[in-house]
Amino acid sequence: MKTEQLGRHILVEYYNCDEDILNNHKLIEKLMVDAAKKAKATVVESVFHMFNPYGVSGAVVISESHLTIHTWPEFGYASVDLFTCGSHVNPWIAFDYLLEGLKAEKSESTEIARGMVDKIRRYSNKDLGNITYKPEEEIA
Amino acid sequence: MKTEQLGRHILVEYYNCDEDILNNHKLIEKLMVDAAKKAKATVVESVFHMFNPYGVSGAVVISESHLTIHTWPEFGYASVDLFTCGSHVNPWIAFDYLLEGLKAEKSESTEIARGMVDKIRRYSNKDLGNITYKPEEEIA
Repeated sequence: MKTEQLGRHILVEYYNCDEDILNNHKLIEKLMVDAAKKAKATVVESVFHMFNPYGVSGAVVISESHLTIHTWPEFGYASVDLFTCGSHVNPWIAFDYLLEGLKAEKSESTEIARGMVDKIRRYSNKDLGNITYKPEEEIA
Repeated sequence: MKTEQLGRHILVEYYNCDEDILNNHKLIEKLMVDAAKKAKATVVESVFHMFNPYGVSGAVVISESHLTIHTWPEFGYASVDLFTCGSHVNPWIAFDYLLEGLKAEKSESTEIARGMVDKIRRYSNKDLGNITYKPEEEIA
């Protein structure tokens, strides 16, 4: 069977990563932006911050939704979200790239459908016509 | 029973929202930043973009993780993530605030534990000591 959905969202827990990598916010930003590009996403803007004493948080806004990361270097742990729309992007490529880039020894993931078309239609008061994700152009 | 976790992540689908609100990126940014503040989160930076012909995407990086949104005004639909760490922040306050602010007629939500302490410990090769979320100070 097939269901229609606007986006797919992979929630990832990376365990036992390289602690120095997890605490390097420039490198984490590069890994996340490169992960988006390798997945064929269009990067709109990225914003990354480092925290005291440890840890990096950041988001990459892509035309097709977003990638985010939060790291706990002291525990070797990173929490990552890969949310993409449209069939031209493959978030699992980003998943694999980050698994290697963070040197994670173990990962766990859950994929969740976002914007299920049948539900959007069910809860709407009007005829929505064709509901699909259309590649979009940033205007502001 | 109680389990220990670093963060909690609420995935929300808001249906039948006000279409004009969903297509106003300045207002969406204000609603998202205010939602973070009302939930007692510390806002680090927000980044919002508008797309052609419709739709807003944005992220609010908070010291305690992030809030993100993607809107489809033409379908009255918004996909929101509320990811917070630490017990001083209550993401459900942000959820309620956005439900009202987006004028959503219907919502569905799923709460997922992120960074489960037992798993971080299980997959680690060393003694990690006490694993808790500590409020952090941004340094870069």
